[in-house]
Amino acid sequence: MGGDDAPAVTVAGARAAQEAGVRVVLVGDRERIAAQPDAHGLRVVHAAESIGMGEDAALAVRQRRGASVRVAAGLVARGEAAGLVSAGSTGATLAAALLEVGRVRGVRRPVIGALLPLGKRGIVLADAGAGMDVQPEALRESACMARAYARALGVRRPTIGLLNVGAEPGKGNELTRAAAELLASVEGFTGNVEPAAALRGAVDVVVTDGFTGNVFLKTIEALAPTPNATPDSAAVLLGVAAVVLVAHGAADAAQIAGALRMAQEVASAGLCERIAVELSAGPSAGRAGMGGEAAWA
Amino acid sequence: MGGDDAPAVTVAGARAAQEAGVRVVLVGDRERIAAQPDAHGLRVVHAAESIGMGEDAALAVRQRRGASVRVAAGLVARGEAAGLVSAGSTGATLAAALLEVGRVRGVRRPVIGALLPLGKRGIVLADAGAGMDVQPEALRESACMARAYARALGVRRPTIGLLNVGAEPGKGNELTRAAAELLASVEGFTGNVEPAAALRGAVDVVVTDGFTGNVFLKTIEALAPTPNATPDSAAVLLGVAAVVLVAHGAADAAQIAGALRMAQEVASAGLCERIAVELSAGPSAGRAGMGGEAAWA
Repeated sequence: MGGDDAPAVTVAGARAAQEAGVRVVLVGDRERIAAQPDAHGLRVVHAAESIGMGEDAALAVRQRRGASVRVAAGLVARGEAAGLVSAGSTGATLAAALLEVGRVRGVRRPVIGALLPLGKRGIVLADAGAGMDVQPEALRESACMARAYARALGVRRPTIGLLNVGAEPGKGNELTRAAAELLASVEGFTGNVEPAAALRGAVDVVVTDGFTGNVFLKTIEALAPTPNATPDSAAVLLGVAAVVLVAHGAADAAQIAGALRMAQEVASAGLCERIAVELSAGPSAGRAGMGGEAAWA
Repeated sequence: MGGDDAPAVTVAGARAAQEAGVRVVLVGDRERIAAQPDAHGLRVVHAAESIGMGEDAALAVRQRRGASVRVAAGLVARGEAAGLVSAGSTGATLAAALLEVGRVRGVRRPVIGALLPLGKRGIVLADAGAGMDVQPEALRESACMARAYARALGVRRPTIGLLNVGAEPGKGNELTRAAAELLASVEGFTGNVEPAAALRGAVDVVVTDGFTGNVFLKTIEALAPTPNATPDSAAVLLGVAAVVLVAHGAADAAQIAGALRMAQEVASAGLCERIAVELSAGPSAGRAGMGGEAAWA
């Protein structure tokens, strides 16, 4: 029920994904979904309520047990679906996922991982907007989760950069200076990365706090000169104990279908298990992750 | 002596500015300047030393009395020049200006004001990179100084937005939430502004901390689709008690000339006096500034 043109766009996207081999369950108002021309043949789980973009997401999710995003998260929690895609409020989706599914063991704070089609094979930006005021340790955790995501997407040895105002060590604010020290022991970390280098795809994973990451992402979205260079339509909630993707509210049917295919892909690649392995290995998670890589490859 | 191709580019830029009516004094190594074909007819003040980009700027400026940027700042401090343009290290230029010229009375922390050719008449971004870890009050001061700069550039009633991850009140991190409350009493403040709106020129002044502002600026520089949309080649140090501009290290001769013309323009418009008036008026500086505007217009 989320997104600017729901449920028309979400239903059309679901149909396209199903035709491409993804088994889709639509969760929302059964009558409104049935009224869509593309709805025929798609499985529907009824949810009487939904959550709007302007609402207090955490409160609405707690109070509205029948909200579509909560019902969908419940399906995932019970193993009836392998992942969840929402084009609604990111805050509501994150709140529903935390309430129904919880976090991966060892994760303190989930972040938003956005896959941007930059460089040769794309980059993962984390955090793209979840954590507004964080400690340096959160950036280390974020780097490990984003690296697991990059591996789930097929990057064998992801490199990691810390988004910063200068490439030299010691640059930046208190957060980035302290985070750079913590990240030094994380495998794949190559140091600070300035925006231009990040945009060239100099590293596979760009780590930053959610405030800076969201400003960075929205600046890219506003300036990207061609549609091909606009960020991918879906972002992954890294650290929740299921595959949960948030599509852009303005996503079209093709982008919804793409998000559903990506959900299937990263669920099959064992994203959450990879994150658990990375984090259970502690500060030197990188090397342990490497050791365990064969099990997932 | 600063910039990637100094002194060739700085001398050529100075010559172009002088031909456009700006009286220019070159400060640097007399022999190296004299070897430039464009140097003929330009006044030169000799400085035996200079400061490189990789150096500890504050330390080098303190220790090297004969460094070109310090000699140039000294000329300004003694009233022998109306302003200073440097294509060298921003940190060294700021340190030299603070040491030789000092701050405008009432200013706690100078910031970098970048003029970006966005929207109909350009926007002033402050802080574009000086203050990495600041308190909310610094953003209020920054807003008042940037508004004075916008007025010096001819904008009669500048509007001010706070760069943020959402337009709604209450969005953002601790810093932006607290700063939004302080800014509410500043004349011209219209609330939070997201990157896309800032890039459309929805406000005349975009206020942010120096870390976020520098990431924002560098992302724009990396993505701006046409040369016309790239940020202006010079930024103003708002809050130092003289007109001091920092050109990009990669600025070409035309951009150096443009920076010199801009230095003349904002010096004539009484930038520092405007900032003093804005800040001496305290929290409701805006109205006092309006009252004093006729004196400068």
